[in-house]
Amino acid sequence: MTTTALVEQIKLKKSFLCVGLDVDLDKIPKHLLDLEDPIFEFCKTIIDATAPYCVAYKPNIAFFEAYGLKGWQSLERVIQYLNTSYPEQFTIADAKRGDIGNTATRYAKAFFDQLQFDALTVAPYMGQDSVEPFLAFEAHHTILLALTSNSGASDFQYTKESDQPLYLKVIEKAQNWKGSERLMYVVGATKTAALRKIRSCIPNAFLLVPGVGAQGGSLDEVAAEGLNKQCGLLVNSSRGIIYAASDESYAEAAADAARVLQNQMAHWLSQKAIV
Amino acid sequence: MTTTALVEQIKLKKSFLCVGLDVDLDKIPKHLLDLEDPIFEFCKTIIDATAPYCVAYKPNIAFFEAYGLKGWQSLERVIQYLNTSYPEQFTIADAKRGDIGNTATRYAKAFFDQLQFDALTVAPYMGQDSVEPFLAFEAHHTILLALTSNSGASDFQYTKESDQPLYLKVIEKAQNWKGSERLMYVVGATKTAALRKIRSCIPNAFLLVPGVGAQGGSLDEVAAEGLNKQCGLLVNSSRGIIYAASDESYAEAAADAARVLQNQMAHWLSQKAIV
Repeated sequence: MTTTALVEQIKLKKSFLCVGLDVDLDKIPKHLLDLEDPIFEFCKTIIDATAPYCVAYKPNIAFFEAYGLKGWQSLERVIQYLNTSYPEQFTIADAKRGDIGNTATRYAKAFFDQLQFDALTVAPYMGQDSVEPFLAFEAHHTILLALTSNSGASDFQYTKESDQPLYLKVIEKAQNWKGSERLMYVVGATKTAALRKIRSCIPNAFLLVPGVGAQGGSLDEVAAEGLNKQCGLLVNSSRGIIYAASDESYAEAAADAARVLQNQMAHWLSQKAIV
Repeated sequence: MTTTALVEQIKLKKSFLCVGLDVDLDKIPKHLLDLEDPIFEFCKTIIDATAPYCVAYKPNIAFFEAYGLKGWQSLERVIQYLNTSYPEQFTIADAKRGDIGNTATRYAKAFFDQLQFDALTVAPYMGQDSVEPFLAFEAHHTILLALTSNSGASDFQYTKESDQPLYLKVIEKAQNWKGSERLMYVVGATKTAALRKIRSCIPNAFLLVPGVGAQGGSLDEVAAEGLNKQCGLLVNSSRGIIYAASDESYAEAAADAARVLQNQMAHWLSQKAIV
């Protein structure tokens, strides 16, 4: 999916919401556990309920991998369902992969060719030759971790060399990598001041912003600092939507939670004259 | 597997060799491709041939993941074969995972509980709360990327703050994390000067050293700088061993290549009075 197509969807739906699929068997409604593939059934219902209000889905790969072969099977079914029933949705494999050359290409093949995700999250620690193999896949996007929303982000991501924090160095260096026009960046919603700096450094890039909701980030602050002319934001919410209710009303509750965020987003898109 | 048990094996076999299983269907002998599970068959033969000369195996997870469900099935069979037939071998899932809290725990469960690997490689970029969940698994080891052997390592890993490069900051900070006694570190064989610095910073830790052979690192330099009283090294070779020959003699050729490295290692272990 191209960025142009993504922007079209954002305008059409007046939403830059990404729904995170962090499917925990301990948290999904109990009545699903008797089904043959509860992970898929839960995802399918959540997708059907929230699709009108969002433009992207982000399965968290760890939650599938944790269930071994069965989990991998569920993941295949989820992405297949998305690609077949909702081809207009942007799909992100949140896998935070990162390895060199040949190995990186294998990961890219797994997520881009085999599973046909639009995008994959990638860690920058190993540098250029660990990211460029992902960027070589032309119809796909690589979402590089820049500044994450967790407390441990402060351990290394702010490491300062000549007054430049590491997260900015990552973003600046990445601009020169081959295929960098297909890069997006993870920037946590809990770091508003940094979001401003990042936006001035890369005015046109798309940012994937986790941390709104359960992690305490504010959608209004993110929108105020992060929106650019073509939107340029995907704001993710996982737990706040998919676990909005834990009983049989979970689909309705998820739709409601997604709609609340979408309304707020529509307001911002109109205020910034994007729609 | 405890570090004590690993050291016992090192002394018994006079080897600190780790064989990397980077199984590429384009590179394995053609006659295997007709079998039902060529990846497993190749790994099994390589393991049977090289087991006398090494103390660890490191499946590169990307190479399995790239084949989707089938690849995951092969991985399950490989680790099961190792754990059943060679329980004395230390097993490392080279997956370079890294994510926060809950998600990290899922990855740990996948590799430690489900697949029963002894160890997992983990990227440090997201900091303390992305690594400690792995360290909570008591019978297992987390191998943190410190300084990698690829050229891109120079992009961020040498970022200097108050004269301290990032790779040393990673190692120093990690010492204070809960469960840090179960940490090992990846240090590329192509960085001998840095290896000296790292060894003086963590004299007792185990280092996993890739980059010997195909990537140009020298085993002698690594041994000279890296060996400590209890050995403290696992030196990995992948392509140099598993693709030593591409015809039907591949098992024999792999055994020969492993034996050459083991001989060199035996010499170093005796010179340093470890055996």
